[in-house]
Amino acid sequence: MVKLIALYKTPKNKESFDEHYYGTHTEVTKKIPGLRKMEVTKITGSPMGDSKYYLLCEMYYDDQESLQAGMKSAEGKASGKDLMSFAGDLVTLMIGEEVDG
Amino acid sequence: MVKLIALYKTPKNKESFDEHYYGTHTEVTKKIPGLRKMEVTKITGSPMGDSKYYLLCEMYYDDQESLQAGMKSAEGKASGKDLMSFAGDLVTLMIGEEVDG
Repeated sequence: MVKLIALYKTPKNKESFDEHYYGTHTEVTKKIPGLRKMEVTKITGSPMGDSKYYLLCEMYYDDQESLQAGMKSAEGKASGKDLMSFAGDLVTLMIGEEVDG
Repeated sequence: MVKLIALYKTPKNKESFDEHYYGTHTEVTKKIPGLRKMEVTKITGSPMGDSKYYLLCEMYYDDQESLQAGMKSAEGKASGKDLMSFAGDLVTLMIGEEVDG
């Protein structure tokens, strides 16, 4: 499968980030057509102790075409706009393809 | 579940990186006790075009204790030593817990 990966740095205000993320952003994002699965991982640290990252979200699509179509849809644009409004300075986006390790 | 996440920046020499990564590093890593699943994602870009990242590897364990025990095992130390030998300057490690999005 193919996935869109969003990696967030730790926000200054975790409470307001969490409120918007779980209360609004994931709800808007789940509506994107073609989205097969969303996996959210809370970063708890690193082998060295702390981590500058806070959250990792992986959004799975069947293939690159479905992912591109999802992002271009009205729902995809709404999710992107919402993302930029609360985490534009925190997020790194990547697109990837699963391979056999 | 709990996972150890390794995010790699794009190496200067992709061919020699891939050779060591798939030929040696994943084989050493798969031997770590307690490892339930390993998911490797090849980064192909970002919504904006290119990405400075190259690869994401997620290694799943039952819980934080199993992950810590795995990293402290002889196999875990061998994997860590190997990692530093070929990608110490490219890799960011994180530990995370899956949550309901």
